[in-house]
Amino acid sequence: MDTLIATAHYAIAADRRDPLRHFRDRFVFGEEPMLYMDGNSLGRLPKVTIGLLHDAIEEQWGRRLIRGWNEGWYTLSRRLGAKVATIIGARPHEVVVCDSTSVNLFKLVEAAGRTVAAAPTDFPSDLYVVRDRQSTNGELRLVNAVDFRSGTLADFDRGGFELWDLSHAVGVLPLDLTRRRVALAVGCTYKYLNGGPGAPAFLYVREDLQNQLANPIRGWFGHARPFDFAPDYEPAPGIDRFLVGTPPVLSLLAMEPGLDLTIEAGIPALRAKSIALTEYMIALHDELLAPFATEVVTPRDPALRGSHVSIRHPEAWRITRALIEQHQVIPDFRAPDLIRFGLAPIYTSFEEVRDAIVRLRAVLKSRSYLAFSAEREGVT
Amino acid sequence: MDTLIATAHYAIAADRRDPLRHFRDRFVFGEEPMLYMDGNSLGRLPKVTIGLLHDAIEEQWGRRLIRGWNEGWYTLSRRLGAKVATIIGARPHEVVVCDSTSVNLFKLVEAAGRTVAAAPTDFPSDLYVVRDRQSTNGELRLVNAVDFRSGTLADFDRGGFELWDLSHAVGVLPLDLTRRRVALAVGCTYKYLNGGPGAPAFLYVREDLQNQLANPIRGWFGHARPFDFAPDYEPAPGIDRFLVGTPPVLSLLAMEPGLDLTIEAGIPALRAKSIALTEYMIALHDELLAPFATEVVTPRDPALRGSHVSIRHPEAWRITRALIEQHQVIPDFRAPDLIRFGLAPIYTSFEEVRDAIVRLRAVLKSRSYLAFSAEREGVT
Repeated sequence: MDTLIATAHYAIAADRRDPLRHFRDRFVFGEEPMLYMDGNSLGRLPKVTIGLLHDAIEEQWGRRLIRGWNEGWYTLSRRLGAKVATIIGARPHEVVVCDSTSVNLFKLVEAAGRTVAAAPTDFPSDLYVVRDRQSTNGELRLVNAVDFRSGTLADFDRGGFELWDLSHAVGVLPLDLTRRRVALAVGCTYKYLNGGPGAPAFLYVREDLQNQLANPIRGWFGHARPFDFAPDYEPAPGIDRFLVGTPPVLSLLAMEPGLDLTIEAGIPALRAKSIALTEYMIALHDELLAPFATEVVTPRDPALRGSHVSIRHPEAWRITRALIEQHQVIPDFRAPDLIRFGLAPIYTSFEEVRDAIVRLRAVLKSRSYLAFSAEREGVT
Repeated sequence: MDTLIATAHYAIAADRRDPLRHFRDRFVFGEEPMLYMDGNSLGRLPKVTIGLLHDAIEEQWGRRLIRGWNEGWYTLSRRLGAKVATIIGARPHEVVVCDSTSVNLFKLVEAAGRTVAAAPTDFPSDLYVVRDRQSTNGELRLVNAVDFRSGTLADFDRGGFELWDLSHAVGVLPLDLTRRRVALAVGCTYKYLNGGPGAPAFLYVREDLQNQLANPIRGWFGHARPFDFAPDYEPAPGIDRFLVGTPPVLSLLAMEPGLDLTIEAGIPALRAKSIALTEYMIALHDELLAPFATEVVTPRDPALRGSHVSIRHPEAWRITRALIEQHQVIPDFRAPDLIRFGLAPIYTSFEEVRDAIVRLRAVLKSRSYLAFSAEREGVT
């Protein structure tokens, strides 16, 4: 290797100094030497989730059956919500976990009943949801906390009546929703929170707004007394009114260990490591990829970025294929020309970051990506 | 016992003649002698689901990680939908599995954009969803295929523009949606389909209506090309447009064995056994409970009922508590005065039906239910 920072020795030493290094052992690592850089699309499986789901299936569903609802399932959305609240700096009764991010966004936008200001760079699916209410001078501002392409942070302290999508931020950044007086928020749990594939999303409503807003989808879990089976809808007081139907219990139960690990590691330590990892990747890019037509589109000021690094190259699609299929590096391709490396601080090592850039250099140098079709396929 | 039909011998002989008796062995039975009569609230765990979820967690999530989306997850909603279609007599491309029943009902009611005629006896949560559009002369009729209290079937052949809630019917009745030209339908998969606690619901739209209707919740899974991340929403052609966000994969995967077992057993055989079980329970009621103040509110004509039997008694709440806590019989209480016995034909035996009524008689005779508080608590 060319320089000190690009040596395996340097990376190994950085890992040895990492105060979070032991958290890596709490996750399943299967087919090494795979370098998984897609924890911002689907986080790794916590080891403890395996036994917990075994119990959920065989004992809770298999043996307790319907009694499971009285033995913990019924309050799961709130119990998990309180844990997410800890992670995003909100109060425990301000968050519930339920439905998908899009459904939750729809509920909050319709509940707010205002025009929405959104940026063309916001997550496309968010734009689909708010479309009918969109207006340049919207009274409610949609804020994507971290840009899903470049990793750029939103202006967190602009203020006003805002609805934040925290999907690419939760678990890696101090969000301080209460301190910032954020009105509304939604976000994914299957990315940095390691909640499992398609794990239900969370929904936050600031305490003073909860009883002023009505859920546009009135379901029995949002009712004040669901099991009275009363003919009239009476919204539950507080955050519960934003629930709708019976939640997918197995997917909810699978989520808890990921939240617990995040809380145990702590956001300050996760943020510090996230900065160190992204800083290291950018430095390696500059050192090792200088001869090639790549460009880091993620901000170089760590105060302005989240936990992924996006590298631009006109052949990004084919390079991503080559990384996955020839080199066991798994980043994400984002159209039209980005290779996106998600660096989940809870389990990603400096050695992995170093090896990923070394393998990317090998692909660029050998032009092995030319063996792949330029035709895009697949879904992720 | 008083009469021939109330003898254990009679019940055992009926089980021996039951052509579906071997399906019982395909489900987990834990703490016998529990008599589980609540398969219409939460169906039992198929044995094969255990291994399948083990693979879903350890292999698919744990080792394949994000690649799982290209290896089956992305098409799960449609693949499971096609299986539900087989069960409800629809075409494979007319059904998807996603979200909760309430969210799906909301999507279809808003997509139809018509006034809705609903009955006060419809499932309360359905009434909450349709409330804003409700009208006595509604252009869209909401039909609860099986009344959740009494078990009475709806008039299946009335026709018109209808939205059916099949929650208490799917898996135990021939529904023939295509033959009946039903326009729209939704339903649960965690009851007679044994899909697991809170398993996502299904949504059916008749082929000719699909491209005329717009999903009010525009999410990326309903987009024609979700992974283009295009700024504009373009609804997918066909049934896919009714999808919204990323679905809870573990809960979806858990559902498949229940659907497969239902298809394997076949609706005609399940319906025949369901009639035999409910007929037997009503006959036992008449034979054994004559001295007590009970009344079967479920229709006595099998052509008019689904697969549960509801028995009315002024002390239904306390009797249900006594059955559960003293006699290991698990029915459902439905306010104000019903004890509801769900008889899932795929795993319920005649012996269980007989024993449940024998134990109910013991409770009524001893008045042991007076030991329980009349104050209702718990959630199910």
